[in-house]
Amino acid sequence: MSIRVAIVGPTGYTALWLVKLLARHPEARVTYLASQREQLPHIAEEFPELLGICDLTCRSIDAAAIARECDAAFIRLPHVAAMQYVPVLLEAGVRVIDLSADYRLSDPRKYESVYGHAHTDTANLANAVYGLPEFNAAKLPGARLVANPGCYPTAAALAIGPLLAKKLVKPTGIVINACSGITGAGRTAKPHLHFPEMNEAFMCYGAGTHRHQPEIEQTLTGLIGEEVRTLFVPHLLPVDRGIHETIYMEPADDLLPGAGAEDALYDVYEAAYANEPFIRIRLGFPNVKHVRDTNYCDLAVRVAGGKVIVFSVIDNMIKGASGQAIQNMNLMFEMEETAGLK
Amino acid sequence: MSIRVAIVGPTGYTALWLVKLLARHPEARVTYLASQREQLPHIAEEFPELLGICDLTCRSIDAAAIARECDAAFIRLPHVAAMQYVPVLLEAGVRVIDLSADYRLSDPRKYESVYGHAHTDTANLANAVYGLPEFNAAKLPGARLVANPGCYPTAAALAIGPLLAKKLVKPTGIVINACSGITGAGRTAKPHLHFPEMNEAFMCYGAGTHRHQPEIEQTLTGLIGEEVRTLFVPHLLPVDRGIHETIYMEPADDLLPGAGAEDALYDVYEAAYANEPFIRIRLGFPNVKHVRDTNYCDLAVRVAGGKVIVFSVIDNMIKGASGQAIQNMNLMFEMEETAGLK
Amino acid sequence: MSIRVAIVGPTGYTALWLVKLLARHPEARVTYLASQREQLPHIAEEFPELLGICDLTCRSIDAAAIARECDAAFIRLPHVAAMQYVPVLLEAGVRVIDLSADYRLSDPRKYESVYGHAHTDTANLANAVYGLPEFNAAKLPGARLVANPGCYPTAAALAIGPLLAKKLVKPTGIVINACSGITGAGRTAKPHLHFPEMNEAFMCYGAGTHRHQPEIEQTLTGLIGEEVRTLFVPHLLPVDRGIHETIYMEPADDLLPGAGAEDALYDVYEAAYANEPFIRIRLGFPNVKHVRDTNYCDLAVRVAGGKVIVFSVIDNMIKGASGQAIQNMNLMFEMEETAGLK
Amino acid sequence: MSIRVAIVGPTGYTALWLVKLLARHPEARVTYLASQREQLPHIAEEFPELLGICDLTCRSIDAAAIARECDAAFIRLPHVAAMQYVPVLLEAGVRVIDLSADYRLSDPRKYESVYGHAHTDTANLANAVYGLPEFNAAKLPGARLVANPGCYPTAAALAIGPLLAKKLVKPTGIVINACSGITGAGRTAKPHLHFPEMNEAFMCYGAGTHRHQPEIEQTLTGLIGEEVRTLFVPHLLPVDRGIHETIYMEPADDLLPGAGAEDALYDVYEAAYANEPFIRIRLGFPNVKHVRDTNYCDLAVRVAGGKVIVFSVIDNMIKGASGQAIQNMNLMFEMEETAGLK
Repeated sequence: MSIRVAIVGPTGYTALWLVKLLARHPEARVTYLASQREQLPHIAEEFPELLGICDLTCRSIDAAAIARECDAAFIRLPHVAAMQYVPVLLEAGVRVIDLSADYRLSDPRKYESVYGHAHTDTANLANAVYGLPEFNAAKLPGARLVANPGCYPTAAALAIGPLLAKKLVKPTGIVINACSGITGAGRTAKPHLHFPEMNEAFMCYGAGTHRHQPEIEQTLTGLIGEEVRTLFVPHLLPVDRGIHETIYMEPADDLLPGAGAEDALYDVYEAAYANEPFIRIRLGFPNVKHVRDTNYCDLAVRVAGGKVIVFSVIDNMIKGASGQAIQNMNLMFEMEETAGLK
Repeated sequence: MSIRVAIVGPTGYTALWLVKLLARHPEARVTYLASQREQLPHIAEEFPELLGICDLTCRSIDAAAIARECDAAFIRLPHVAAMQYVPVLLEAGVRVIDLSADYRLSDPRKYESVYGHAHTDTANLANAVYGLPEFNAAKLPGARLVANPGCYPTAAALAIGPLLAKKLVKPTGIVINACSGITGAGRTAKPHLHFPEMNEAFMCYGAGTHRHQPEIEQTLTGLIGEEVRTLFVPHLLPVDRGIHETIYMEPADDLLPGAGAEDALYDVYEAAYANEPFIRIRLGFPNVKHVRDTNYCDLAVRVAGGKVIVFSVIDNMIKGASGQAIQNMNLMFEMEETAGLK
Repeated sequence: MSIRVAIVGPTGYTALWLVKLLARHPEARVTYLASQREQLPHIAEEFPELLGICDLTCRSIDAAAIARECDAAFIRLPHVAAMQYVPVLLEAGVRVIDLSADYRLSDPRKYESVYGHAHTDTANLANAVYGLPEFNAAKLPGARLVANPGCYPTAAALAIGPLLAKKLVKPTGIVINACSGITGAGRTAKPHLHFPEMNEAFMCYGAGTHRHQPEIEQTLTGLIGEEVRTLFVPHLLPVDRGIHETIYMEPADDLLPGAGAEDALYDVYEAAYANEPFIRIRLGFPNVKHVRDTNYCDLAVRVAGGKVIVFSVIDNMIKGASGQAIQNMNLMFEMEETAGLK
Repeated sequence: MSIRVAIVGPTGYTALWLVKLLARHPEARVTYLASQREQLPHIAEEFPELLGICDLTCRSIDAAAIARECDAAFIRLPHVAAMQYVPVLLEAGVRVIDLSADYRLSDPRKYESVYGHAHTDTANLANAVYGLPEFNAAKLPGARLVANPGCYPTAAALAIGPLLAKKLVKPTGIVINACSGITGAGRTAKPHLHFPEMNEAFMCYGAGTHRHQPEIEQTLTGLIGEEVRTLFVPHLLPVDRGIHETIYMEPADDLLPGAGAEDALYDVYEAAYANEPFIRIRLGFPNVKHVRDTNYCDLAVRVAGGKVIVFSVIDNMIKGASGQAIQNMNLMFEMEETAGLK
């Protein structure tokens, strides 16, 4: 089998990584690059590093042509734009992995309050699978529409979920101190992302206001059936790639104190992810450099100062976006989960 | 007046910055570089950037000579080594600003438990002034021995102190999520600080175990006369310079909710530091890049998710070490507080 | 004496450094920030790092007001725009240091061919002094209009000049392999200067086509009265600051071979710059890091492979722009050459 | 077929990349990690990023065991050490790709003069194939000992070879201005490679003295049967990965002038490398970032200032070391040349 793949919105960093990863995939190949631009470049003009790797010229977004030529489409359009194209592609018979935010929040009212637009495709929204494979693997085979999670929510949910599920930490008062490499801010040049502004710099850019906070809370609330409350505080890190989250949680009242607790929590993670190919539980502190260019999420846990502290790192481009999207595709099409990703 | 200054331990980054800053000081000049090394280099061989800036060759640590030729000495030796030399220099009549950890913790038992060595100079320890000028300015004029604070404790105490003093936050449950540029780890080449290991990297290196945590707690406990408890979690940031702390505190029960609270807290900082030349209260998020090469501490405050969040940034080499040491010298010798620092 | 200074075009990096350096100058102070923008910001809104350092709000470019309130003006406008304002300010009695390219090339036809615009102020062009103080110090006292050199030409001319003047190298076949930190490309965000594009990147961006090549050739030709030909090849270096030039020259036929030649050339530099406060001749290889934030130009020379190789480094923002502009101001107004710069 | 591979000297960066690349290779697998160390670590303790990727513990260097368990060995020992082990492994029947310098220079007297040690394995030296596949592909199938080229020589020879072979440039007066990312200096922490020393730094570290210069000259001289002379000048670039060479050559007397020449030279490269899977000829300037993590060598050519200028970039870890070593293994064992490398 070889899945034929379209990328809709092929000129951002996420698309670049989809192309690079799919070039190595044994059972999928990119056959259609669909762009909203008027001028449709060869992809290697847009990304010089793709010279010799992908020999496609961008085409316009023609759902009928995509349906004829592709089995699946990755959507990498801004939110709102994505939900214009998703129903058309689904209708035409293409299975969709949407990397925008449009199908991540299951409640359309929540979507509207967070993103400031009414949801225009609530029918498909109701059937979208939230594509965090470690939590939702059962729903992915055969799924027609998968919402690929946000980068920060991926790292956060994988870190917090196992302890909440075992009631080892309290569902409120969770603080997520997060840092992201600059590719997470996208490919558009902006004054505050100009090299001399970000190089040798470090700063917070929000406290409790980021759109990923409700996504994290939805996932965790869904997991335990009880309302989960977090405070999400993102910072910009002067590196290309990587998300690092230091997560502070209140231990449940009956958690063992001291080093015993730490061992017990480590074991919980080991058990929870024993069969997951992309989760690594570490004794040492995770480092964004050690997951670079991989689909891994590295986790470690500490108990100190009356808190449970979990460290979670991913590559924002891979497990935080394109790698996870391919992991989802693999499961949707019942291929090997790790195909093209190891 | 022109203060003649010795630097004892002149081959670390802190000493480099002392030399550079003092080269601009209108009323002080470096006259003696005292080293423990066997081979005594010209300082511009050790630091090529000092060619043309400082024309001194290192000499051995001769207290009598230092006393003859200097009014003050900056000690930049490792802890334990520092307290061998400090009493000798004081005895010889030299006033001392010690940048090691040896005189920071006022309780010698605490010192021993944190640093693993008995304190061998308890007599002078009892008289050492903790040189955080914004809190202890009254004790500095005429002081003979000043313990220059640690870099992380400087940023933390300046950020937390004003709210604790006004009882606007609780003295326990304080989480200090800290990041430091790599010069903070010193000048000695180590495998984990090799360029290809730290470049494009980011990781935690401790949770509740750093020696600066008790120093922070001592300062804040001393400030309010009530025990303060913190959880200090440091991370290494792939930049040369700068400390960034994101500090999470529980609001006092009667703190105003919402934006009103934020304004009120901002006003508390403005009032607390109205006369301080090196503290800037910001509406936007502080950035380590904006304090680089300066003696400023930039602060901002937010209220979100049921927490009070304070952001504090300094240059670890300047306000976190050499700049603050000069600020202390200025006050000890009753010079302009900002001399050589603006 | 205290010179009152205007900065015309205060929102670029060069202006930032003028403000920072002048804040320390003992005999000059910035009194007027003149901007072409419609919205005129407080300078600390534009540059958060200037909070507490400069408390001026930008004003419009009003020559009469500038003349009333200032003795000198630094012009930091794009070329063509600069030569609109310079004659008006000169006419109003303000002495001008122009940091644009408009008065650097003395031949207006050459200017037109390089910059693509006719020169509209040839009268003042004829009287402009090219402000490379190490070569032109005699013309600066009393000068009314100084053209501040380009960054690359400063490093190149200081490196090549002494050997050409002594006829130790040939005036043709000179290759200047140059690298510049990203601040050299200005403050405007552009796609190729977006952090993730430049971080961990390195590439050439021209070979024989850069506008600084004719400026270099003019300076050197003027120095020796014989036509000098260079090939200038600039590269972008993923650092904030610094220019590094590796310059390859053909030795004159009678240059001593081997190590003897190297020593002889070293002595030529030592002699040429014996009285220059901002030139350092090094035995080791110069490093951009060692001149950062200084007005130094560091030079070293080697003889190998049949070539004379000279290494020249400066901080593009300081000796390459704002520092040299202040050095020029100091000499124009007959102040200490190093005032505000050490 | 599945080649069983040993890595001798598994704790350097080159070995890390061998492991990572071979983990993806369809027809080879690492089965033996042979180390000189006394303490033999699990490879994921040594390189945390290999957790889950390679589950081998290092063993001692036992030639008999390696011969039993492996078909090929990559040697990543320092020079001199390598030639102790290579004959033993060859004797035991293992085919060897040596990444040290010991078998690169075919003349043992040249080896001794460059590396300061007598060559102790001249018998095998005489039969070693210099593993630059683009030049020596015919000799690789069946080869028992391959000397993997140096990183700089790979980039240089691929850039210069085609023009020399066509006599379009002169064989003398070639200047190679080279820059390398810091992984090129190895994994051992050294003072000048400490993060705060190299970050934001840039400097030359030799002019005509690097051991790769004779290797470059040997390759090119061998190619054209006429003595080739170069001047090689390496610089350290503050990035992890990548070599960038700007190479200046004298055009042959009959080379067409101007843009016509440039097109003609471009065509020469296109023709020379038409069938090479890892060479890309670019119209724009090559960028180290665009070859990162790939086995590509990107080339571009310009004619300016009377010189032919060629730009050559590779990833020093991949085409400059481990990737090329695998390319050599693929050809030695008559597998697909690109296996595991695309």
